[in-house]
Amino acid sequence: MKIRVGIVGYGNLGRGVEYAVKNTEDMELCAVFTRRNPETVKTVFNAPVYNINTALNFKDKLDVLIMCGGSANDLPVQTPEFAQHFNIVDSFDTHAKIPSHFNNVDAAAKKAGKIGIISIGWDPGLFSLMRALGKAVLPNGNDYTFWGKGVSQGHSDAIRRIDGVLDARQYTIPIESALQSVRNCENPTLTAREKHLRECFVVAKEGADLNKIENEIKTMPNYFDEYNTTVHFISMEELNKNHKGIPHGGFVFRTGSSGKDNENKHVMEFKLKLDSNPEFTSGVLVAFARAAYKLNKEGVSGCKTIFDIAPKYLLSESEEFLRKTML
Amino acid sequence: MKIRVGIVGYGNLGRGVEYAVKNTEDMELCAVFTRRNPETVKTVFNAPVYNINTALNFKDKLDVLIMCGGSANDLPVQTPEFAQHFNIVDSFDTHAKIPSHFNNVDAAAKKAGKIGIISIGWDPGLFSLMRALGKAVLPNGNDYTFWGKGVSQGHSDAIRRIDGVLDARQYTIPIESALQSVRNCENPTLTAREKHLRECFVVAKEGADLNKIENEIKTMPNYFDEYNTTVHFISMEELNKNHKGIPHGGFVFRTGSSGKDNENKHVMEFKLKLDSNPEFTSGVLVAFARAAYKLNKEGVSGCKTIFDIAPKYLLSESEEFLRKTML
Repeated sequence: MKIRVGIVGYGNLGRGVEYAVKNTEDMELCAVFTRRNPETVKTVFNAPVYNINTALNFKDKLDVLIMCGGSANDLPVQTPEFAQHFNIVDSFDTHAKIPSHFNNVDAAAKKAGKIGIISIGWDPGLFSLMRALGKAVLPNGNDYTFWGKGVSQGHSDAIRRIDGVLDARQYTIPIESALQSVRNCENPTLTAREKHLRECFVVAKEGADLNKIENEIKTMPNYFDEYNTTVHFISMEELNKNHKGIPHGGFVFRTGSSGKDNENKHVMEFKLKLDSNPEFTSGVLVAFARAAYKLNKEGVSGCKTIFDIAPKYLLSESEEFLRKTML
Repeated sequence: MKIRVGIVGYGNLGRGVEYAVKNTEDMELCAVFTRRNPETVKTVFNAPVYNINTALNFKDKLDVLIMCGGSANDLPVQTPEFAQHFNIVDSFDTHAKIPSHFNNVDAAAKKAGKIGIISIGWDPGLFSLMRALGKAVLPNGNDYTFWGKGVSQGHSDAIRRIDGVLDARQYTIPIESALQSVRNCENPTLTAREKHLRECFVVAKEGADLNKIENEIKTMPNYFDEYNTTVHFISMEELNKNHKGIPHGGFVFRTGSSGKDNENKHVMEFKLKLDSNPEFTSGVLVAFARAAYKLNKEGVSGCKTIFDIAPKYLLSESEEFLRKTML
């Protein structure tokens, strides 16, 4: 019997999960839950859609729920709520609030004998794992995380809120000389400005003051003022043609040394290059949904993160097969 | 109290473990066991050296043993033997024999209530983990492992056995165009010759037939005949000056796709660049020695591989700290 999966929230991430489940042999998508009128939501492969308020009716019909809402407003409420009844996985990515989210999910999941794996994706997620692995094997070293080239939704949204802007897309770009300095084991101390560039493509209203918009972007606190930012004004047509994708990626480095006088240098580099940020994130979520199911079957409950999950739980193959073919 | 570590076998790897333990705050090296006369073995930081036959006297004085012998003759015998009495970690890397090694260690360790983590290092080890992670999150894809640029001890030894050769060093070098094809998601099917070059630096006896040596190298079955190989004859002085290090490294790629028609491509790339192969391997061994100790304290016994170990066990920090600082 296949692992029965439900999705909560059907946006880019939910759709990505639908694709990703389709790529597995041991899982099936049984339900999509939405706050919208279910009749208005059409899934790609015709998974049935239900109102989110009916989810409890599926308590015994689903093995794991993948939470596909946003970290700002949805997940802090939904994940602890659903963890009272289901095994869940989410991609909660507000770093500063992870400890309290963990505690909320832990209490709910433990009470229910369910498991909740939080903050799954690539950062937090695979990148976190690389940071931990790097520190474990090269304790005498430094780690560096770079993001991009990729679209930052938060920064794109911030530009859209500026008066006179119709639409915008912001790319975060790691600075090549900084990457090289890290690779050369120079252990640089890098400011925000030295690590990433911000490149903006903006569609302005007709007659808008372009200089004013550009200045507002470049001086925006927290978002842009600490970076070198370039602004290109383009037509809506060009934006739709060349900037509608959601690519992303990045790098995690761990550099360290060994030997009697630390004379030998070592570089670990993990790099992602993703055509679709939400679809890749979905693939990670689905692997950890499998882990949630398998671990809960072994009697494990409570809140977990990527640090708590042994790799074998992520795959459907037997342990013997993994040792024989992948070790 | 610190985790009390013993080393079995004091060559390059044993010395690397000595360095690596020194870089931790929660572990101490308490004993080095050797088959040689202990009085002839001097450790770098003056760890005490004992004859290997006295190891059982340390049953209650050591928390974990790191096995630093060779995979061909030492580990198949020593690891199951010592797993009857100690938690152990080894770097057994004869891929074809891993299943039987696993079974031998599992039987011994389970009987003793100890844990034995085998095949730890970077390949097998971190590279195995990357292959498994890649398959888990991009099931619809391919993986590729490349080694180098680095010294292959086995190939260097093979050259040294040729008549007329005094010393030799062989570098395995990944072919750049193959790496690029993989990065471009072209999903190439690559032969051995298309993946790696072999570059040899050879010191010949005076008067030896260099053409004959070069030909013997290039046509050597299994080792060289399936590769493009270059041979450089150099002086012993040059070999000692420029080729005495033991650098290595390599790449694991997972490429895959997502979306309704698999139109979005994703590339995961993990790269290692190591000045010292044995010293980096030692760092991995020490992290998993910590995991062996911590897991055994939780009551876990039997044989484990990197697929069985949750990342949190590799670090000395608390789970709360990891979530707060690395997630």
